[in-house]
This record gives sequence, C-alpha cells and structure tokens, in this order.
Amino acid sequence: MTDPVRFPVEPWCLRETFLDVDQLAQMESLFALSNGHVGLRANLDEGEPHAIPGTYLGSFYEGRPLPYAEAGYGYPESGQTLVNVTNGKIMRLLVDDTPFDVRYGELLDHERTLDFRAGTLRRTADWRSPAGSHVRVTSTRLVSFVHRAVAAIEYEVEAVGLQTRIILQSELVANEAPPVNVGDDPRVAAALERPLLPIDADVTKSGAVLLHRTKSSGLLMGAGMEHVVEAPGRHTVDSEIRDDWARTTVVCTLQPGEKLRVVKYIGYGWSSTRSAPAVRDQVEAALTGASYAGWSGLTGTQRDYLDDFWKSADVEVDGDPVVQQAVRFGLFHVLQAGARTERRAIAAKGLTGPGYDGHAFWDTEGYVLPLLTLTIPDATADALRWRASTLDLARARAKTLGLDGAAFAWRTINGEEASAYWPAGTAAFHINADIASAFEHYRLVTGDLALELECGLAVLVETARLWMSIGHHDRHGAWHIDGVTGPDEYTAVADDNVFTNLMAARNLRAAADACVRHPQNAAQLGVSVEDVAAWRDAASAVFIPYDEELGVHPQCGNFTRYGEWDFDGSVDQYPLMLHSPYFQLYRKQVIKQADLVLAMHWCGDSFTPDQKARNIDYYERRTVRDSSLSACTQAVMCAEVGHLELAHRYLHEAALMDLHDLHHNTKDGLHIASLAGGWSALVEGFGGLREHHSLLTLAPALPEGITRLAFRVRWWGMRLLVEVADGQVECSLPGQTDRTMSLVLYDEQVEVTCAKSVRRPLRHRLALLPTPTQPSGREPLMDGDPAYAALDLGIRELDDRA
Amino acid sequence: MTDPVRFPVEPWCLRETFLDVDQLAQMESLFALSNGHVGLRANLDEGEPHAIPGTYLGSFYEGRPLPYAEAGYGYPESGQTLVNVTNGKIMRLLVDDTPFDVRYGELLDHERTLDFRAGTLRRTADWRSPAGSHVRVTSTRLVSFVHRAVAAIEYEVEAVGLQTRIILQSELVANEAPPVNVGDDPRVAAALERPLLPIDADVTKSGAVLLHRTKSSGLLMGAGMEHVVEAPGRHTVDSEIRDDWARTTVVCTLQPGEKLRVVKYIGYGWSSTRSAPAVRDQVEAALTGASYAGWSGLTGTQRDYLDDFWKSADVEVDGDPVVQQAVRFGLFHVLQAGARTERRAIAAKGLTGPGYDGHAFWDTEGYVLPLLTLTIPDATADALRWRASTLDLARARAKTLGLDGAAFAWRTINGEEASAYWPAGTAAFHINADIASAFEHYRLVTGDLALELECGLAVLVETARLWMSIGHHDRHGAWHIDGVTGPDEYTAVADDNVFTNLMAARNLRAAADACVRHPQNAAQLGVSVEDVAAWRDAASAVFIPYDEELGVHPQCGNFTRYGEWDFDGSVDQYPLMLHSPYFQLYRKQVIKQADLVLAMHWCGDSFTPDQKARNIDYYERRTVRDSSLSACTQAVMCAEVGHLELAHRYLHEAALMDLHDLHHNTKDGLHIASLAGGWSALVEGFGGLREHHSLLTLAPALPEGITRLAFRVRWWGMRLLVEVADGQVECSLPGQTDRTMSLVLYDEQVEVTCAKSVRRPLRHRLALLPTPTQPSGREPLMDGDPAYAALDLGIRELDDRA
Repeated sequence: MTDPVRFPVEPWCLRETFLDVDQLAQMESLFALSNGHVGLRANLDEGEPHAIPGTYLGSFYEGRPLPYAEAGYGYPESGQTLVNVTNGKIMRLLVDDTPFDVRYGELLDHERTLDFRAGTLRRTADWRSPAGSHVRVTSTRLVSFVHRAVAAIEYEVEAVGLQTRIILQSELVANEAPPVNVGDDPRVAAALERPLLPIDADVTKSGAVLLHRTKSSGLLMGAGMEHVVEAPGRHTVDSEIRDDWARTTVVCTLQPGEKLRVVKYIGYGWSSTRSAPAVRDQVEAALTGASYAGWSGLTGTQRDYLDDFWKSADVEVDGDPVVQQAVRFGLFHVLQAGARTERRAIAAKGLTGPGYDGHAFWDTEGYVLPLLTLTIPDATADALRWRASTLDLARARAKTLGLDGAAFAWRTINGEEASAYWPAGTAAFHINADIASAFEHYRLVTGDLALELECGLAVLVETARLWMSIGHHDRHGAWHIDGVTGPDEYTAVADDNVFTNLMAARNLRAAADACVRHPQNAAQLGVSVEDVAAWRDAASAVFIPYDEELGVHPQCGNFTRYGEWDFDGSVDQYPLMLHSPYFQLYRKQVIKQADLVLAMHWCGDSFTPDQKARNIDYYERRTVRDSSLSACTQAVMCAEVGHLELAHRYLHEAALMDLHDLHHNTKDGLHIASLAGGWSALVEGFGGLREHHSLLTLAPALPEGITRLAFRVRWWGMRLLVEVADGQVECSLPGQTDRTMSLVLYDEQVEVTCAKSVRRPLRHRLALLPTPTQPSGREPLMDGDPAYAALDLGIRELDDRA
Repeated sequence: MTDPVRFPVEPWCLRETFLDVDQLAQMESLFALSNGHVGLRANLDEGEPHAIPGTYLGSFYEGRPLPYAEAGYGYPESGQTLVNVTNGKIMRLLVDDTPFDVRYGELLDHERTLDFRAGTLRRTADWRSPAGSHVRVTSTRLVSFVHRAVAAIEYEVEAVGLQTRIILQSELVANEAPPVNVGDDPRVAAALERPLLPIDADVTKSGAVLLHRTKSSGLLMGAGMEHVVEAPGRHTVDSEIRDDWARTTVVCTLQPGEKLRVVKYIGYGWSSTRSAPAVRDQVEAALTGASYAGWSGLTGTQRDYLDDFWKSADVEVDGDPVVQQAVRFGLFHVLQAGARTERRAIAAKGLTGPGYDGHAFWDTEGYVLPLLTLTIPDATADALRWRASTLDLARARAKTLGLDGAAFAWRTINGEEASAYWPAGTAAFHINADIASAFEHYRLVTGDLALELECGLAVLVETARLWMSIGHHDRHGAWHIDGVTGPDEYTAVADDNVFTNLMAARNLRAAADACVRHPQNAAQLGVSVEDVAAWRDAASAVFIPYDEELGVHPQCGNFTRYGEWDFDGSVDQYPLMLHSPYFQLYRKQVIKQADLVLAMHWCGDSFTPDQKARNIDYYERRTVRDSSLSACTQAVMCAEVGHLELAHRYLHEAALMDLHDLHHNTKDGLHIASLAGGWSALVEGFGGLREHHSLLTLAPALPEGITRLAFRVRWWGMRLLVEVADGQVECSLPGQTDRTMSLVLYDEQVEVTCAKSVRRPLRHRLALLPTPTQPSGREPLMDGDPAYAALDLGIRELDDRA
C-alpha cells in the first residue's frame, strides 16, 4: 500500500490501479463496505479467488465453547463468533463458456475505487479469456446508509471486438467454507463449520430468499435478492434454489460494444425472536424498498447522506496528502462501522473481517465513540443504548464475581462475557469507567439529557456501585483499587493502576452528579444520599502513586521499581507477546500501549504540565506499541507536551495502521479504533481539542509538515469549523444563524457566532524536555522516511511466514 | 471414618469391620497398596462393585492435549496423565454358577485390614449367595517392597455347610472404562479412553502376559500373572487370552470345610526405550522371581523390610490413640509412595488414585522428602536423582521463558511442564528453591557428598542462575523478585513474596557454598568466581518487606494493605476457589495455605521469636486452609510459638486429612504430603526438630493431650531415638556402638553415644500472645470435639452433592 503507482494518493478515494492476487486479503478489508448493520468484504464479484469470504450482519453470531485445560470459578464457558452469513454479492460470469477468473486468461486492466463521497466500491476489469473472448466488466457496489437492510450491485458487461455469449449467475450462497483458522479444538471447529441450518427458501423468476438459523445460538436470518436486467436482444432470466444456495441466471448474446446491465438488490434481516415468516417478509420488504428506490435512488441518497456527514466531520490537511487521504479513509470506515449499527455492538473490526471473532471491546467507548459523538452523535446514542441493553447481563456478571453493580463484558457480541483469559479480560474493569465516560462525553457534547434519563443514569449508578465494591480504603484513609488490569496489557493484575484509579474516581463523581440532576430517578434506582456521599468521598480519597525520586507517576504501584526490559535484545521480537511469556512482560517496565499516557489524555486535569512532560519522557522510552490503540494516544500527548514532529509520526502510524498494514493483520479486518485515532491525533493532538468543565477547548499547534488543518465538530447541535493556517486559528459557525457557541481558545474564553468568527494567532508550542527516544526498533516511522520502503518489504516477508 | 465401630482405632493397622458400598471410593484410596513402582487401589478382588478401578505403574503416563480458549506464549501444549494400566488383581468367583458380588445375596461378614507391619491388605468375606450357597473368602494382597515389579494375592475360598462348585477366574484386564471425569473436551477424552494399544500376548496353562503400548506417549508396558493352585480333589486349571484380557480359570468342587487356595503372582514392567521382547522377558523374570520366593518368601521379606523401616521411623504417641494410628498410617503410605519409586516422580497422590492426573508437584521436595530423608534417605536420593534427570527439560523451559539456568516443572510426570494456568504454575518459581533445599537437606542429614557431585551441584548452580535472571536490584541496591507466586495460591503474581525471596537467597548461598566445596566441578559447569560473588551479593541484598506499623511481615509487597476478606459471609463457601474468582482472592487478605508461616518454618533463622509470634497471630486469622498443605505447617509453627493446643488440632487435621476425608476428595487418592505433614507436626512441631548450622536441633514441648512422644530419625547413618515423657527428654542411640552424635537440645549442644543417652528436663513453652482465632467456619476441629460428628455428616452430604 505504500506503492504510489498501484495506490495513487488521492484526497477523496482509495484507488487500486492493478490487482495483486497475493494481497487479496488485505484489500478485502480495506475496500469493505458496511453501514454497521450489513457488511461486505471486498471479495471479487465472481467469488474467486478470495482470501476470506465475508458477509456479515451486525451482531449475528454463533455460540462456541471456550475450553480450559485448568478451569476456574467464573470463567465464561461459551463465547460468540461473528458468522459469515449468506453471501449475496456473488456474480459469476461465463464468457463464451469460460468462467471469468482473474487468475486465468489476460487481465488487461483492473481497477477498484472506494469513493468516500459516493459511498460505493467501483470496479472495472478488462479481460481476455484464454479462448480469446474479450469483455469489459464494470461493477459498482454499495451498502446503503439510508436503506439499512439493503446492499446493491450494478453489474455491466461489455463485449469487445467479437460477438460474445454471456451467462451471468447471480447467487446467494450460505455456509461458505470457514475463512479463519479456528485453532485445533474440534469442538470449536464443529461449532463454526457450516453454522447455518436451512429453514426455508423461496424463489421467483428473477430472485430468491433463503432463511437459515444458527445451530447453537438459534438466531434466524434471511437473505434475498432481486434483479433488474437490461440486455440487448433475446435474453432469458431464470432462478432456482436449494437449501444453501439460490441462483438467478441471465443468458444473452452481446455484439461488440453492447452491454448487459444487471442491477442486483440484496436484502438482509435477522432476529432472535421473530418468526421465519416475519423475517422472510422483512427481507422481501427491504428488496421491495430497494427496487422502488431504484439504482439511481440508492446511489443518490447514499451521496446525500455522505455529503451531510462530511459537512459535519471532514478534516482537511494541507501539506501531507498521505494523511489527508488516510484520515478521510478512517472517517469513512468509522462511519461505516457505526452509522446504522443501531443498538447492536460496534465491533473492533467493524464488519470488515473475522478478526477478534467480531467482538466489541472498550475500543468502542474509548476510541470510536468520541469521534462519532463529535460528528454524528445519534450513532453514539444508539451505541450507548446497546451497551445499556446489556446492563442486566453486566449485573449478573458482577454478581458472579462477588461484586456489586454491573461489570460489563470485556469482549462480547451479545453482552455476555467471552473473554477466556481473565488477567486481560475480567480484571480489566476499567471498561466500566470507559463506558460511563462515554455517556458523560455524549451529554457534554450534545447537551442531550434524554439519553441519561433513558439509560445513562442506570449505567452510571451501577458502575459506581461496582467501583465501590472493588475499591477499598487503607488504614490511612486512601482509597485503593488492587489487582486490576489497566489498558496496558503487558502489565496485569496490578495495584493502583493510575488510569483505572482516575477513571473510577471520575465514574463515581459523574454518577454522583447525575443522581443530583435526577434525584427521583436515582431514588428509583435505590440510590441514597449516603451512597452518593460515599462515592464522592472515595473519589476524593483515590490514591495516585507518584515516584518522588524520579518525578514521574508509576503506571501502577511498584511500576517504576520494576526491572527494565532488554529492548536491545528484542529488536526482532515484536510483538513481544509472541516471543515472551506474560510472566516476563508483567514484571518488567515494558508497556504494550499507552496507559499512564492515556490517563494524561483522558484525565488531563489530574496532571501538571511539568508532570506530563516528564511522564511522556519516561513512558516513551518503555512503550512498544504492540497494540494498535497506542500510537494515536501517543500522538495526542506528544503534541500536547510539544513534541510536534514525534506526534506527526504517531499520527502517521495511527492513520496508516491498515493502509500500510503496520500490524500485519489487516487481512482479518480493519482497526476501527486506530482509524478513529488518526482523526484524534489531528483534532485532539494538533487541534488540541478537549472538553473541560462543560466547554469545548482548543489549543492548536501544527508540526512542520502540515501547513493547514481544518476540522469540523458538532457541539450542542452546532457545527463548528476550526481552521488553522497561516499563523492564525479561526473558529466559525458557517451558515448557522442565531447560534452562539462559547469555547476556550488556548486560555481565553470566546464567543463564536455565525456572523462573527473568532480569529487568534496560532501559538508556538515549546517542549519542556528534549524529544524522547523509543525502544530500539520501535521508533515510529513516517511515510517518506528512507526506512519506510524496507518496512513495507518486511511486512511482506512476515506475511509470507505467517 | 470417624465411626469407631466400623473403624476401630488400632495402633498398627487400619481395619474396616463392615462394608459400606457408598464409600467404596474413599476406601479404595485408604487401603491402597504400593511400593512406589506398582500401585493397586483397594478395588475388591472380584472387580465389581468399584468406584475407581486403579492399577498404576510409577510415571507410566499418556500424553493429552491442553486446550486454551486464549493461548499465550510459552503455554504447555500437551500434558500427561497417569494411566490405569492392565489390572492384575481381578479374581472373579462363581459359587455354584452365581457370581460372588457383595451387592447380592447376604454378606454375613466383611472385614478388611491394612497391616502396617505386615505390609498386606487382608480381606475376609462370609457370603451366602441368593441361591443359598455359602462361602468364606479370605484374600491377602501385597505389593512387594523387596521385589519391585511384583504384586501377589493369596486367595482362599472355603465351602460352608454344603458341597459347593467353585469357578475362579483370575484375570488381567487392560483398558478398563475410564475412572475419572476428564471434563467435556472430546480430545482429552479421546486421548484417555482406551489408552493402551495391544502389542503382544502370551499364554501358558496357568498364566499369561499382555503387552500394550500407549497411543500418544508411546510407552510400552507388560503385565503378567502366574498361579499356584491348591485344591482338594479333581480340579482343572486353564488359561486363555485376547488382546485386552487374559484369564486363568480354576474349577473344583469343595466339600463343606474344604478350601481352594490360589496364589497369584503378578508382574509388571514398562519402558520408553526397550523392545517388546525385552519388556516381556522383564515381566516373566519378575514372575519367576516371585514364584521362586513363594508366598511365604514374599510375605516374610515384606515384614522384614517394614520391621527395618519402623526401627528407623516409628513415632509413638501416648494419650492420643487416634493420632497414634494416623501417624503410622501416614508413614506407611509415604513409604509406599516413595520406597521403590527409584528415579521416577513421587506423585502428590502416590499411586493411590487418579487425582491431579498423577502429577508430582513441589509437595515432593517440600513435604515428602524431609520425612524420607530422616527415615529412609536412599529413597530421597533416588527421588532427587529423578528430579535432576529432568534438568535438561528444565533448562529448555527456562530458555522458553527467557530465563537463565533451569526452571523445573510445576506439575509433571515426565519432567515436562504440564501446568495450564500460568499464574499458579509457571509463576510459582519457588519450586526451584524447594528442590535446591531438598538437596541441601539430604546432604546435611546424611553427610553424603556423592549425590551432590553426581547431580546436586548442577541443580544448585542452574537454579541459582535462574534466580539471578528473575531477581533484580532496585536503584537503592535492594534485590527484588517481582511477579511470582508463592505457596499461597490465593495470592499470585505478586512482588517480593517473602517465602520466595528467602528461599531464593538460600538457594543462591547453597549454590555458592557447593561451588566452593567442588571448585573443579563448578568450573566444568561454567561457574566463575564472579558468578559466585554475584550470587552471594544478591542473597545478602534480598528485600524482605516488613510492615512497621503492624509489626508483621506482609506475605508479599502490599499484602497487609489489601482489603480484608469477608469471612463471615463465606462460612459455607469453602473451598473459596469454587465460589469466588481468582480476581477476588488475589487482591484480598485471604490465604489458602501457609506461605509466610511456611517461610518461618523453613527459614526460621530469618525471624525473631517476637516476629514469629506476631506473624502467627496475624496470619492465623486470615488463613482458610483450602490446601491440604497448610495444617501441618500451621501445627509446626503454632507449636513453636507456644500455641500447643492449637498445634494439636492442626496435627489432627493434617494426620486425619484422608482417614476423615477432610477435603472430600480422598476418593481420588491420598494426600501424601499432608500424611507426611502429620509426622512433621509431631516431630518438628512437638519435637521441635530442625536442622540448623549442620546440627540437628530439638526443642520438645507437648500439648496436654499427649503424654508421651517418641520418635526415631536417621542422621549420618545413625538412628537417633528421642523420647519425651514424664517431664523428661531423652536422646539415645540404642544398639549403635562406636557412634557419637552431636546435637542441640533446646539451646545446649550435647553429645549422644550408645552408652550414654542424654536426658534433660522437658521445658514448658509459654506463648507470647494469646491463642489466635481463625476465619469463621475454619477453626480446626479435633476428633472428639462435639462438632466432629456434625463435620462427618457434612462431608457425606457434600460427597452426595458432588
């Protein structure tokens, strides 16, 4: 992806100018389409060759056993895996009886374009068959943001040079061969191989519907297709079905220059409660709606939807075209992951691949929702409603663990805990504070109190109760949280993790404030005045360890006293967890991902500028970024303490995580949180955007390579435009009459109106300390560095070895 | 087992006066026979009814996969399970065509006696068949201490009242139905179901040999039988074989008062390297040797062997007959577990049941070997040779973990790590110091330097290297060990576990001293003078946390700062690990088993009497004894600090662990370490025996209920007799002319010779602090307490529920 010939750097699309069959898997993820409810990996229309066939419905999962050689109390016994559902994107083409397959014959030209404004994946292929027939294929695929259950394909074949007989088989295929290596446990393999039992099927002349049910989780799903065929001269259209497939076949003969055009509407539906007839009707209705809209209706509303999104969300970056493309690529995919998820989980990989079994983690609330809240807040509200809908499961989990309140699942699809390694699952209780914080952030940014009343208050109260049962006072009155795991997964089950302690205290205060806002609702939840007082007391007594000798915060209790990692001996051993046991990682000063540094981002008020500078200096030298959640936070905090060039490098790493396949696993799906983190690096890093004390605050500072930065965010229904260029910062509310927005620009509170933008000189930011170094081999590289080509080479080698 | 009618308390045997079919499982363990190489559970001769059929060969295992839902680097992928091998103890009896089965007809009388001096299990049964035939069956079974590969059964049937036709089928049966619930993993079940593949079989008129090989581990084993038949009148003897069984059938008719007597010799052999013919010959040779000795020869040498053992090892306890029986029961079973193990692992359950998969743990070096070293030191030498034979595997394991030296397996049969939960496996590095300490103890007690030269030095050096790569200095020069697990499994992956730190320091010093003793051998192992100096420096800089405010040692770094466990809310939740997640246990002040208290036992020099008293007071209140390894240590240390009555209760708990099934799992095999611990409670607790500074030291003190205590130990080839009675302590060397032993009695160094015993007044021991309490519901009970009957009832209820 670093080859500018194959992938020209363009501001509004991702374009692949020729096909490399060896890199299909990564491309299937990068070019994936989704609206958060239906997801299609960018498998080629004709089905093969493919790397990982993928068609997903948000939260449609199959249950699977979780085996343990030595089990323990409270270990989850079953997990969930996102199912590759009935594939509706297959269009098999026979050209004079020869199957169109890019591996055979001559692929004269092949281009794919993911258009961030059109919301489509367009493909053109110019192919000469081994027998000499020549066709031009153009397909355009979309997953509609407006019609939630609908995907569609416009497929055109043109005969070139000769009369050509065309047979097009448009299909639905269920139970494709499993895409992932599910390990060597035959129970797991058995559960995930052919997960769909046929329930019903229906066929018309030009379409079909297939209904299936998962074996173990018992979820019902339907997939349907309907076709509009335009062909010159005589042609036939016919359909047939079996249990696991349906096929509509179009036959025609094209003269040179003539085209066959088929529009395929694909409808999906699933339910855990509704009947088979109901789900079938739901799918038929989706198809009817799509047919009614027509292809131009679908593409038109798709573009309108995106135009509106970009108006609220676009980020312009002058001087660094690679980042310009990457941040829009990231915004587009974050939107795809979350736009129409609607009370289902937003998974770590969105609906772009089978990675992490399709689970949602704390990434959602911690990394993805901050972006959505500031750009498309209704999506956040729905995502939080989903989380709140798992509250009863979280209460039950807390009870199992001997705790009060609610303990939300560390990884899940349906709300049940599916984490099988408790030190990095159950023990990572910070997810509960992260969820509470996302509710608070939503309230602060939107001014909407309805969500809090609907479900947020209960989440705040139950997470506060959880923390009260985890934390305890020592004999001197300090409040500690022992034996939990913070964000850094290379340190686990530790005492007084600063991030967790600060976030828990904030959770307690937020719950207390919310109870004051809604006294009657709080009383209905059984919260007493004494409860609220105890929450505030614990929060104010929270223990934050500090190493006076070194002048830095230990990430947790003893951290700065631990042995140092031998980074020089680890240069070729990243990620470390694949080369070292947890035992070694946990007891040493080696950090997988921003933890104390994340605390400084999310709880910035709890640190002085001096402490921030020294902490960054300390932790930069010990953080290996084996998690994709790290670079973006390091970008934000390096920018804050004045290491702007270093921040720029981390911005590149975060934003290019998938485009450059920096973690060698983009094939399994995109790193949605890191893509959101690219935005964060720009807006919160170089824009200095924070939300402090109910006000938006800005403190822009640009690195050398970026000449202009403009970004848009929503705030209380307004759309703020911030432009940083030519030594100036300008805040405006273009086109929004009668609105006034108070915000803090640097240290000054200002008022922005439609009529009057605010303009101030761009401040220079001085670092208190010299730029720190990173562990050997983990210096962040930047596209354009001489070493970058070598990195790319290295990636391919690694992939070959895997 | 607390019913004195069914189990009369007798000093030299365990006797069951009538059969309870519901308690077969526990009895199969209690009455098991073994010599450490061959083990027979006390299954009834006729095979059924049985609870867990069990015939074991020391370290004969099958491999099994270890599944992980979330795997990590360095996790063992395969484990080992002790195999239930070909059962040679089956004697099926048909009485006038009716099978003898205790569940049918009338069992007029049934008694079993395990005789600690004869080394036999004798059974008598008086049975009337449903058809009215009446027989008396007497069987005597032994596993020979002298003939390592031989077991034998003398089986007699007498007709009572009527002429009776008798058919006796003596069998070898391979691949009995699996005895244990192996969980729900089909791979594990598949591995352990029918683990033996038939290789060869041979039959004679009166006997047979069967050869089998394990499917995965590829170990070869042979089992053979030969019979001597004495019958009045006409009788026939014939044998036949199939792949998985062999049968010798005796038919005869008995007049009233006549007897059929069959002596069955059973021979075993196994090898990982030798050929099938070689193993077959080995089995045949064992049978030939047994036949040559004859039944009287086998029983005679068995008694001689035990007479010699008791001369070195017997403990006499006057005033407490229950303990008198229990300590001899324990000594007998510890002897059975270790006598002829000979360079194979001594498992936690010996060869008495399938518990813990037949694995050996640190119990061996920590609890079993101290007893063996002081009573039958050659067995210790062999056990340590076994451990040393796994040194290459331990080196490889250390390398995998990124450590130097050798990391011995936490649980294993063949030396490979089989622990699948690393916080309580890999992280429990103290096992390495425990092994080093056992070598040191052996040297100190025997004066033998040969074992050190043969293999001990390498173990000391490699474990010292391990510790140097685990420990590290802080910036003030203190030497820390972070992130390891000590003995207490309710606290894991902790910093500066006092037990581990002290034992590691001792390991380093012992290695340094051994290198000074054997400079050339040390040089061959690559040890330099600088290495040795670094070991001593680290040992002397070892950090021992101390809580000045409370005046106690925290078990590990922050321990005394942790939250307290709600013991009042846990009264009915023992063992806690079945009702609470590790997360809760690890972060609270709740202790599964002696840890800091064990440190005070094994490293007593590192604590003042004051500290010991305060630490006992602190930890007694927080220790729940969910491990069977705890009560004995608490007995020893409570005795040392003067809580003699409390120590007496812990002695009861340790010694009666299995006889009273206190942990409800005696059915899976005996707790060999706790049985050794009963001895330890008497000899090290009330005898005050320690080994300090190359001298045996004694400091006897008796609780009220014990009027006289006499015990024997070996020291440098001498057999010391210590008698504590009538306000006197007497040390003597009966019958050992020309020997002089220096020892410390209380604080005085004395010389004991054959001619001149040393007698001193028994000192009264005053406790510095009042007797501490234990967590609610965990007060140690004592046979005779009113609550004891209720306890017994409770146990049965629990068993029913399980």
